[in-house]
Parts: sequence; structure tokens; C-alpha cells
Amino acid sequence: MTNAAPATSQQTNQQIRESYDAFKTKGLKLNLTRGKPAADQLDLSNALLALPGVADFMAEGATDCRNYGGLQGLIEARRLFSGMMGAPADQIVIANNASLALMHDTLVFGLLKGMCDSTSPWLKQGEISFLAPVPGYDRHFTICEEHGVKLIQVALNDDGPDMEQVERLVADNPSIKGMWCVPKYSNPTGTTYSDAVIERVAKMKTAAPDFRLYWDNAYTVHHLTAEKVEIANIIDLCARHGNPNRPFVFASTSKVTLPGAGLAMFASSKDNVKWLLTRLTPRTIGPDKLNQLRHVRYLKNEDGITKLMDHHRALIAPKFNKVLDVFRAKLSDTPGVSWTSPKGGYFISLEVPKGKARRVVALAKEAGIELTPAGATHPYGKDPEDRTIRIAPTFPDLPEVALAAEGVALSVKLAIAE
Amino acid sequence: MTNAAPATSQQTNQQIRESYDAFKTKGLKLNLTRGKPAADQLDLSNALLALPGVADFMAEGATDCRNYGGLQGLIEARRLFSGMMGAPADQIVIANNASLALMHDTLVFGLLKGMCDSTSPWLKQGEISFLAPVPGYDRHFTICEEHGVKLIQVALNDDGPDMEQVERLVADNPSIKGMWCVPKYSNPTGTTYSDAVIERVAKMKTAAPDFRLYWDNAYTVHHLTAEKVEIANIIDLCARHGNPNRPFVFASTSKVTLPGAGLAMFASSKDNVKWLLTRLTPRTIGPDKLNQLRHVRYLKNEDGITKLMDHHRALIAPKFNKVLDVFRAKLSDTPGVSWTSPKGGYFISLEVPKGKARRVVALAKEAGIELTPAGATHPYGKDPEDRTIRIAPTFPDLPEVALAAEGVALSVKLAIAE
Repeated sequence: MTNAAPATSQQTNQQIRESYDAFKTKGLKLNLTRGKPAADQLDLSNALLALPGVADFMAEGATDCRNYGGLQGLIEARRLFSGMMGAPADQIVIANNASLALMHDTLVFGLLKGMCDSTSPWLKQGEISFLAPVPGYDRHFTICEEHGVKLIQVALNDDGPDMEQVERLVADNPSIKGMWCVPKYSNPTGTTYSDAVIERVAKMKTAAPDFRLYWDNAYTVHHLTAEKVEIANIIDLCARHGNPNRPFVFASTSKVTLPGAGLAMFASSKDNVKWLLTRLTPRTIGPDKLNQLRHVRYLKNEDGITKLMDHHRALIAPKFNKVLDVFRAKLSDTPGVSWTSPKGGYFISLEVPKGKARRVVALAKEAGIELTPAGATHPYGKDPEDRTIRIAPTFPDLPEVALAAEGVALSVKLAIAE
Repeated sequence: MTNAAPATSQQTNQQIRESYDAFKTKGLKLNLTRGKPAADQLDLSNALLALPGVADFMAEGATDCRNYGGLQGLIEARRLFSGMMGAPADQIVIANNASLALMHDTLVFGLLKGMCDSTSPWLKQGEISFLAPVPGYDRHFTICEEHGVKLIQVALNDDGPDMEQVERLVADNPSIKGMWCVPKYSNPTGTTYSDAVIERVAKMKTAAPDFRLYWDNAYTVHHLTAEKVEIANIIDLCARHGNPNRPFVFASTSKVTLPGAGLAMFASSKDNVKWLLTRLTPRTIGPDKLNQLRHVRYLKNEDGITKLMDHHRALIAPKFNKVLDVFRAKLSDTPGVSWTSPKGGYFISLEVPKGKARRVVALAKEAGIELTPAGATHPYGKDPEDRTIRIAPTFPDLPEVALAAEGVALSVKLAIAE
């Protein structure tokens, strides 16, 4: 049995192969690919499924949530998420269920129309680039790839993007119009930007007058420990340094309430909010206000969000800990292998020896464990060192997570042994 | 009192002015601008507000509607709207709450990426144009205006667009990539395209290989009479004539269930559906499936839709009839004035003598009645003849509709008398 004795560096290649083969015979079908909440997490918000109730549809300002209108979103919903977004209610827009759509659409609007401080639409300015701290989130990169925006990789250090690299690039190159940032509990490494890095990002000189931080604060309340990390307020800092229009802050309730039926939010300067609403006006008369009212009734206030996130943590922290336990037990002695121990978010990042990530993913697949394709953490799906593997432990149940982690560890050892 | 005696052509200008002034002293505040359902119509669907219920979230195919995924929409929702869309379920995409957003986004995708049969993105092909049958819907025109797509006006006859004009234009000009169509109970005239016109639209030769009909079937089940007009199936006809990718069919439940929280739908060829899903993939992981399940549970089947629309008709047909009664009583003898008597949809179109529409709208406003700005029914907000006024009678209650219609009639008469 693979879990009879901890693997050690003394294991022969033959023993590793035997352990892996034994694991394979279990015929498992496990999936560690996507950052999806598990069913027990979704159950936490089942109250939403009967809200707001047949007689509850009026919001503040005599707003009938059933009818057209209200492009910026309900005032009570904007107030509810004001703390989470780090902005006053009038600097928040609440949209339908996907913050990714807001990121996509604001980039498309930049290309076709320009930002509020652009001299012309980005498409008329030749090649446009975004900085991509790596490892990062594949769906961010895909938006740029889809629309021909060049991705320039920068290193993601333990305290955020390598700011010397970032500052040099944006100061020199006016074609760099943006940077993808997951400032807290980053996907996939769990990295949180230090206050010093956030301040440098807010005040750095950019050659492009219309440079934007795509500040995807996706995991802002998604703590895995009692520490509940807080980060500096990017909107305030950018304003203080004379760059009020720099940050586009995105978040959603996808991993707070329900991924399929949550709310997406945008926060920024007043000028950017006005710009976004102007761009959205030809597109829609307004978002689904009933779903906003539903969330207001259910979450009630910031304390409601905090309590709900504590319940999530109780369900998923053990899964992260299980993966880390298995990795510690099986991989601690394996040279060139390391992993992150995130304090929040949805991912663990596993680093294997150079040139081995794709092989690990293939071996895991053979053993019945689906992993995110190696390379997905880098632009164009190409990890130049073929080192990074993203582990998403939330969706399977705890025994499955344990098994899957073990299978991954065996796949790592075998890939190295081969 | 203005309603003491029917106005006749024998009225002196002095009498008209007196009637108008008397009306004005009522100090009314009425609004006939937007095609919004009234609160009693929204009440019909209040059951939605507590659906699907706390224990109901699983859809066919073991789909947990609470979680991520399902880009094309629930199969049961696509089946539910299959008749309404005139397409099998696999040729339907169900999105969030605004069909306008689908129209906007497909056009943007055409500009940035090209259609499935484009030789290159539309933006790389120089000037792009759309045909705009007039009078038409201002929000259609705004999408093109926002993105620099030129609008070429064609006449809307009693049986649809002037096909000789349309056929000549699209055969000659490869820059014409699309045409806006509201084929049934058109906004604002109530026009329904004849089967002969629809067949010609389906089979006409277009210089552009990637020409698209933006077929906004917004009022497909929105009957105002027992006749329940049916039109030819554009998807079938286009396929039969070898132009399967020509139609983009749009509809929504905005005026079936709830405008703020309905579903938007797209139907087309398999290739177009595949194209749309490919384009949507970088933008979102999927639509709000719970709202789709909510609609499936509430409407149940096509019969459910029919019965609900009968209830709507019972509430709004009297409002249309009231406007028509007042116009008949007050304006029948007024030269150069005519109006449509729609069999469905949300609007009456009022034609006044050339050069008078703006003045009528201004006079109505002075008298406390807000009307859609004259010109809104034409591209760039400019009605070259200044003749067409759109009347939207659904939102105010019946006594208000009667008063408003009277005020409009008085404004028409005064504008002519001046």
C-alpha cells in the first residue's frame, strides 16, 4: 500500500515505480483542476434559493427590482460590498454573475473606445501589452490572448511582482497599458502583495498615461487561517499618488455565495465609474437587480460576509492542510520540489524540478488524477521552465483530496526518477 | 374640459390653444417614453421571487446550478424556449438578463474577431455598415453608433423592409455586414414582416459573405389580439436557401417574466452557436443557471408561456385600445396625422405632419407628458422628416394612459395650428 510507509529519498527507482503502479491499480477518478467550491460550501448559501420571497422586490429609492433600470446596481448592494471593495458606494458598479466578464469587457472597451484618459482607442495605438506576473491565472492571460494584447512576463516574488522589473518596463514602454494583479492569496501561489509593493505599484511612473491595474481581488475575504491578511487600499494609494484612474478593482461573490449565481463588482475612481457606465449604456439597461436584492437580504452586512467566510474556511482549510501534510510526508526530501502554504485563496502551487511539470501532470492523469495542464499558469500556456503545477483542493471531498495528493506526490517522484 | 366635446376640424386655433392650456393646468406628470411593463404585469411572475426553493438546484445531466459552468445554458431552458426561438435546443444559447447585451457583444466580436465565415475581423475591412429599417429601435442604432458602424436607412413598409432597396444595397456593397430587424410587432410601428419578405431576406444575394440578420424577435409571443400572428421561420428559410449562418435570432423574457431579471436567448446555425460559445469562453465560465432553473420551474412549458402572455394581454390591450380610441376621437379629422394599430408588441407609432414631431414632443412635455424624443426612431437621432413619435402605453395605469393620450392629441393639434 502506498500509504503504508512514508516515501524517503532512500526509495529506489524500482520502489517508486511499484508504488505508483499500485496506486494506478486503484482505478481512481479524481480532479484537482479547477477552483470550484464543493457542494457542502454551496449548501451554506441555499437560503438564497428562496430569496427575496414573493412579496419582496422593492429596493431603496422606490426601485422595483423586477423592472428595467439601475445600471450601477442597487445602492444597498454597493454599500454592502463597500468594505470588501475598499471604495465608497458611489465608486462601485455591481454587475451580473462573472467578474471575468467585467475584466474582459473593460479591456475590449479600452481597445475599441479607449479609457477615460486615453488619447485614442488602444487599437489605434499599435501593439498593446499587459504585464503578467507569473505564475498567474490562465483566464486572465486568455483574455489578452483572445484580443491580441501581448503579455510580458514579470516575476512574482514572495511579496508581489518584481517591482524593479515592473517599474523599468512601464516607465520605458508606452505600449504597456496594464498589469494583471491578484493582490491577495494569488492564484496559484497564494502570494499576498506587501504594502510596500502596493505603494510602489500605485506611485510608479508609467509611460502610458492610461495605464490600468487589473486588480483582481478575487480572494479578498477568502482566508484559510485565523490571520485574515489585510492589504493596502489600492484605490486610496493611487489617488494619493496622483494616479486616481490607475486601478480597476474587481471582485465577486462567486466563492462567497454561489459561483453560478453570484454578483460581480467593479470599483475605481469616479471618472472610471462614469466611463464604465457610459460604455455599458449601449450594452444593457441594467443588471439583474433581484439577484442583488437576494444577496442583500441574505448577507445583510459585512459581518454576514465574515461569518459566511468562516464557515467556508472550516470546510476547506482541512483540505489544504491534508495536501500539505501529504506533500510534507512524501516530498520533503525530494530535491528541487517545493510548494506554497497559502493563507487564503483556492490554490497551492507545486514547483517540481525544471522540465518535469508536464510529465508529472501526464503521470497523474494515468493514475486517475486530473491536474490543470502544466503551463496554464503562464502566458500562452507555456511555462518556460516547465516547473509549476497548480493544485486546487476544494472541490473533491477530504478522503479524495488525501488520495489525490498522494498520487501527485508519487507522480512527482516517478517523473524525477525516470 | 378637454374631454367635454370631441375635437373637430372646425375648432378654431383659439379653441385648440384654450383646450391645451386647460389641460396644462392639471399639472400632470405622465410618462409614455419607455416600453416597460407595469407593476401589475410584474406581479404575474412574483412566484419567481421564491423559486427554485432551498432544496431545488439540480438540473438535468447532474448539473448543480449553483456552481460554475454550462456556458450554453441549461438544456431544459433551451428546450423550453425552442418553440419561441424556432430552433432546436442545440442551436440555442441562453445568457443573462439582456438580449441587448447579446446583440452588442456579437457585433463587437464581429468587429474584433470576425464572424465564423469572415475573411478577417470586420475592423480590418474598412468601413462597416448595417441597414436600418426606419422607423426602428433607438437602442439598436446606438450599438452601431457606439462602435462606428455606419447605419444606412431603408424604408419599413407595411410588410417589412423595402426589399427592392435592401436587395440592391446588399448585392452591391460588401461593407454592409448586417441588418437590424424586429420581424414581428416591430418597435415602434407594430409592423410584422410578411412571409414573402422573410423569404426574400433569407435568399437575397449579399456581396458580404458574412452578412448577418440581427433578427430581434423581441415580441414573438407578445400578442395584443386573439389573432396571435405567426411569422415564417428565418433559421429554416436561411438554411433552405443556402445561407445557414445569416440569421442571429435574439429574444428574451424581459417582457414575459421580469425585465430586470429575465433570460436572454440567441438562436442560429450550429456553426454560429459554436462561434458564439468560442467567443464567450474567454469572457465567462457560464451564465446564471439558477435563474434559468427558476424560469423552467415557473413557466414549465410552452403552454405556460402562452398562458402568461394571455394574462399580459388582458392587462395591456385596454391601454393600447384607450390610446387608439382617443386618437380616433380627437385626431381622425386632422390632415397629415396617422397612427398604427399594432396587433402586438409595446408601441404605437404616431405620424404627424412633416416638421412637427419635435414640436409635439415639446408641447406634450410642457403639458406634463414625457414622450420619447422625436428622432429616436431613426439613426443618429435624426428623423429627416421630423414626423414619427413613439407612444409606449404599457407603464402608466389606464386612467393615466387616457389622459396622456388626450394631452398628446392636443399637443398635435396645437403644433399644427401654430
